[in-house]
Amino acid sequence: MKAKVSIVMGSVSDLKIMENAARFLNEMNVPFEINALSAHRVPLQVAEYAGGLESRGVKVVIAGAGGAAHLPGVIAAVTPVPVIGVPIKSSNSIDGWDSVLSILQMPAGIPVATVALDGAHNAGILAVQILALSDEELMCKFKKYKSGLAQKVLKANEDLKDVKYEFKIDRQFGYE
Amino acid sequence: MKAKVSIVMGSVSDLKIMENAARFLNEMNVPFEINALSAHRVPLQVAEYAGGLESRGVKVVIAGAGGAAHLPGVIAAVTPVPVIGVPIKSSNSIDGWDSVLSILQMPAGIPVATVALDGAHNAGILAVQILALSDEELMCKFKKYKSGLAQKVLKANEDLKDVKYEFKIDRQFGYE
Amino acid sequence: MKAKVSIVMGSVSDLKIMENAARFLNEMNVPFEINALSAHRVPLQVAEYAGGLESRGVKVVIAGAGGAAHLPGVIAAVTPVPVIGVPIKSSNSIDGWDSVLSILQMPAGIPVATVALDGAHNAGILAVQILALSDEELMCKFKKYKSGLAQKVLKANEDLKDVKYEFKIDRQFGYE
Amino acid sequence: MKAKVSIVMGSVSDLKIMENAARFLNEMNVPFEINALSAHRVPLQVAEYAGGLESRGVKVVIAGAGGAAHLPGVIAAVTPVPVIGVPIKSSNSIDGWDSVLSILQMPAGIPVATVALDGAHNAGILAVQILALSDEELMCKFKKYKSGLAQKVLKANEDLKDVKYEFKIDRQFGYE
Amino acid sequence: MKAKVSIVMGSVSDLKIMENAARFLNEMNVPFEINALSAHRVPLQVAEYAGGLESRGVKVVIAGAGGAAHLPGVIAAVTPVPVIGVPIKSSNSIDGWDSVLSILQMPAGIPVATVALDGAHNAGILAVQILALSDEELMCKFKKYKSGLAQKVLKANEDLKDVKYEFKIDRQFGYE
Amino acid sequence: MKAKVSIVMGSVSDLKIMENAARFLNEMNVPFEINALSAHRVPLQVAEYAGGLESRGVKVVIAGAGGAAHLPGVIAAVTPVPVIGVPIKSSNSIDGWDSVLSILQMPAGIPVATVALDGAHNAGILAVQILALSDEELMCKFKKYKSGLAQKVLKANEDLKDVKYEFKIDRQFGYE
Amino acid sequence: MKAKVSIVMGSVSDLKIMENAARFLNEMNVPFEINALSAHRVPLQVAEYAGGLESRGVKVVIAGAGGAAHLPGVIAAVTPVPVIGVPIKSSNSIDGWDSVLSILQMPAGIPVATVALDGAHNAGILAVQILALSDEELMCKFKKYKSGLAQKVLKANEDLKDVKYEFKIDRQFGYE
Amino acid sequence: MKAKVSIVMGSVSDLKIMENAARFLNEMNVPFEINALSAHRVPLQVAEYAGGLESRGVKVVIAGAGGAAHLPGVIAAVTPVPVIGVPIKSSNSIDGWDSVLSILQMPAGIPVATVALDGAHNAGILAVQILALSDEELMCKFKKYKSGLAQKVLKANEDLKDVKYEFKIDRQFGYE
Repeated sequence: MKAKVSIVMGSVSDLKIMENAARFLNEMNVPFEINALSAHRVPLQVAEYAGGLESRGVKVVIAGAGGAAHLPGVIAAVTPVPVIGVPIKSSNSIDGWDSVLSILQMPAGIPVATVALDGAHNAGILAVQILALSDEELMCKFKKYKSGLAQKVLKANEDLKDVKYEFKIDRQFGYE
Repeated sequence: MKAKVSIVMGSVSDLKIMENAARFLNEMNVPFEINALSAHRVPLQVAEYAGGLESRGVKVVIAGAGGAAHLPGVIAAVTPVPVIGVPIKSSNSIDGWDSVLSILQMPAGIPVATVALDGAHNAGILAVQILALSDEELMCKFKKYKSGLAQKVLKANEDLKDVKYEFKIDRQFGYE
Repeated sequence: MKAKVSIVMGSVSDLKIMENAARFLNEMNVPFEINALSAHRVPLQVAEYAGGLESRGVKVVIAGAGGAAHLPGVIAAVTPVPVIGVPIKSSNSIDGWDSVLSILQMPAGIPVATVALDGAHNAGILAVQILALSDEELMCKFKKYKSGLAQKVLKANEDLKDVKYEFKIDRQFGYE
Repeated sequence: MKAKVSIVMGSVSDLKIMENAARFLNEMNVPFEINALSAHRVPLQVAEYAGGLESRGVKVVIAGAGGAAHLPGVIAAVTPVPVIGVPIKSSNSIDGWDSVLSILQMPAGIPVATVALDGAHNAGILAVQILALSDEELMCKFKKYKSGLAQKVLKANEDLKDVKYEFKIDRQFGYE
Repeated sequence: MKAKVSIVMGSVSDLKIMENAARFLNEMNVPFEINALSAHRVPLQVAEYAGGLESRGVKVVIAGAGGAAHLPGVIAAVTPVPVIGVPIKSSNSIDGWDSVLSILQMPAGIPVATVALDGAHNAGILAVQILALSDEELMCKFKKYKSGLAQKVLKANEDLKDVKYEFKIDRQFGYE
Repeated sequence: MKAKVSIVMGSVSDLKIMENAARFLNEMNVPFEINALSAHRVPLQVAEYAGGLESRGVKVVIAGAGGAAHLPGVIAAVTPVPVIGVPIKSSNSIDGWDSVLSILQMPAGIPVATVALDGAHNAGILAVQILALSDEELMCKFKKYKSGLAQKVLKANEDLKDVKYEFKIDRQFGYE
Repeated sequence: MKAKVSIVMGSVSDLKIMENAARFLNEMNVPFEINALSAHRVPLQVAEYAGGLESRGVKVVIAGAGGAAHLPGVIAAVTPVPVIGVPIKSSNSIDGWDSVLSILQMPAGIPVATVALDGAHNAGILAVQILALSDEELMCKFKKYKSGLAQKVLKANEDLKDVKYEFKIDRQFGYE
Repeated sequence: MKAKVSIVMGSVSDLKIMENAARFLNEMNVPFEINALSAHRVPLQVAEYAGGLESRGVKVVIAGAGGAAHLPGVIAAVTPVPVIGVPIKSSNSIDGWDSVLSILQMPAGIPVATVALDGAHNAGILAVQILALSDEELMCKFKKYKSGLAQKVLKANEDLKDVKYEFKIDRQFGYE
């Protein structure tokens, strides 16, 4: 099956963050590929990679990078396919501000859909939301995931009632 | 006894911060409730929760959240009851700046009374100060707490005189 | 009639911001007083002022200041009455960050209910919300104000339909 | 024709920024709607609006807001449709940092595709890129726009050669 | 012997930073006193303390505090004696920015001589430099300290030549 | 009469800020000198200047600079005389943060007494406070200035009562 | 004459900043070329441009850009020629922080020699310093420029003596 | 063999960062020297050191420092040789911002070629790039290093295919 989402990161050391996107796509049964290609160390391969995305049938790119994070923008410059950018708080980052700003502040004409710092999981979700616009089955699966999220929160809130505090809790808001 | 203060947080993982509010309310004998309801994962329950606050007799809300912390503002949008916001430096936060700014910078018309980053204890105190305006006994208890705070500081300062330093302290300011 | 809210600011030059609090209190018929007393230039008068608040019947303080904004905290240190802090982006401020942080980041024990930068209007609203907890008529007036706000927004949204754009708007969400 | 993109903003005063999204959609012949609905002033209408997006056939939301900008996140909480967030440097903003962080730093589960500060034009482009994934004609139009962008840059660079400087330019890189 | 320098801090937990000032004063044989008096928890004692400084013969105050650090400014407001402020990166601080800005950004009329974050050692030095202006013996001792500093740096640089690197160092600048 | 205070700035363009220090010294009858000597453009002259300060009888230096503001630190490195640093928000500054941090964050051993951004007036006051420690007449003059400040604030507060607002002020705190 | 320095910027609107580099090169008689080529809008031409730099005899690149400023890094990725980066505070920038961090924080392996925000003049100087290492005549010219800078500063300082202040300047440091 | 590059740092504690520059120079067979000379503790030796650089045949300086990092600028003020600045996140730094801004924001006339925070390795590379402009053999070696970097990235990307994930990777982009 051909990859519909292409996950790419600036360095293999970003994998521990970026695999959260892969895991979600896997859970949703969306075929994907993973590459680690630095915009600065292998610029020609990145250009070739970006140039081939559309024809290979890739519908969404998830690109993560740290520091002066040019990878998402450099790919968005070449391909018409939407690019989701994941700022990564790598070891050489100034508290993540550099990656956030280098990905977010793209010039007019070349957007990158930026998610939260280290937010690869949300990048996976966003990719699914985009694909689901023309895939009813996926939309259905995604809605289940979304209502599952809500159920977990409500369950955790329920459990809160049974927690033993030193201090006494009067009662909770009955949301059921 | 009906809860006068409603403590709510975006996630159960915020409890280790938010229980500092609960502990103070308990100490002051103010009945309260605790909920963990995410503005983003269970928006309808949050709206229902916020909509019922006034009629259930809640006088003050203490709402804590991290990251893009919308919970306090979303509740303040619905209820006429004053909302105290606690920015939380959660693991996905950019040094706490995101939670501080998402709670503090509310638009004209819908204030949130923001306290310091992770300042749930102070949120509890503020709630008590508000309730004490129409509850003389509570005001009395609160003033005792406040002068107790001062006594502890003065005692600690006294003890400083007896500390053995390598270097010699000349004398202290005699504040007694 | 005795003032229920005391508005105080670090300098008369802060009046153009702080009068937004006064205007709202006036609109809600809440008696108030205004003072300009610098925590740094007249510390003794500030202490005397803060010390007398409760016995004069003041229920809420709204204190605004810019730069190293100590006024709200210095008052909160003395009085048991709740203090709302308004950070002001004065001319000598570093983009407002100094006033925000000097007011927000109060130590455990002495909260200041901080509102947005230059958010004196919201400080007035918060004061009304606190007073309305034990004043049904005021609560009623405040709810009218709040639903009036909503009406204005919905009306403005309606008007948006009639605006002439160069570009064509398909249709709006029918929220009525 | 039914709107495929729904543009929404926190206040009509954001229109001068947000109309850049509308203009691009118009240029690409994508039907859209515009609303100004504050997450804080009309929360119920925002919930109703967000709840109806999918069934009304809206495929992408472009939501812009300033200050503690909760609107994009609040909508994303309700709808499965992808939400593009536009941070706006409104007058009450702290240099735009508050809007950027309140939109970008969404919690796991509820992404908002954030673009640059005041980047409504790019939000329009991103919406078109998403729609074009299942609309060949639109993809074709978008590619023309993208190569048109490139032509303008190359033309401007050409013109640079003819500019009269006091200082002499040796020669340019011949990129043709 | 009467204290010439008064060291004061917002909390005894600041002692691990502030003792660096004490240690230097001790080394220079300058008599000093140490107090821990919170501007917010014991405001009256702080005012009394500050009011008595000059008459007790104190020539310089070194005041350290974290978070919304009002202590140095509150003392400077009362006493004509110069106040050196030490911003402290306490546990409740936002990376130290709050303490730095609350101490540095004092309004016109009431300066605080601010040193680096956690820079209590430098505060001790500054106090000595001020006292040395009218104390030749102290000036002499201070100059020895200062040239001692330089000797240590030059010695360390010498030692660098003997360090075994995997990589070969060509030669050093001969500064002797 | 020999200068007791030496005012120095990185560029003559800083004079409009730095003359506020001069004006205060003049008012207090303290003899001073003014120089504009860039640490980066005339480093040798700055070293010579700093090396001669003590022997020429200068007691305090007030050094102001913008951007990467090295001047105060470079002077403090050479002279045992206390150096007051004035960060200046020059045109090439990043909102003043660069000048603040380059002056404030001096390493252990070489303090600079930093005042607020553009706070040259306060630098003048601090210099007077230091000189007044061994000059009773000056101390007397300074105290008059300080109580004059307070009088002005109290007078302005009095005048506030007479201001015509659209909204009605109930009454002021009677601080007299 | 072949260009030794290639000035390139992300947009012609950056020319008002970048011409300061050109002007200095002109003054030093260094042949140069100017291009405006966006890394995001014409990525292939930028790659081609960067790939040809060395063979065309260019020795130093000066690349300026604003916002998410990828241009300098993208060129440095391709060419072995040293690249000087000029962060530009363009209209779509967040106070310049985005351009500074996207240029400065390059990953290991691909440095960009970054100068101050809007510091194109300094970029020109740095290029001259690099070329002068193997061009004695240029080194000579540059040293004259550098000592000319010093002379101007000393002259301006001299003129300061003659300025009429309301306040009296005692005397200056005699640096001659 | 005479040193062509002079590495200098503000303190021997910076060696663990700065040796990354040394290691690269060693790898490229470029003779270098290392010194640890504080701009603030031994200003005269730094001036002497900087004054002698050119005549000793040094072609490039790599200067690293933390906090209020004046060393690179102070050296650039004296020598016509290009200076590369390495901001160091030392223990007394405010998250590295102080060192970055004190090195980057140099005034017009005196550039410092700044690299990333703790980016000493890149400083070494930049020095080699500058020297290689007039040393063909070094240029050749550097290009090999650069293409070696690319090979490592491509190899790591290849290896990614063989990694066992819990989730299945569809396929990679075939860049070979």
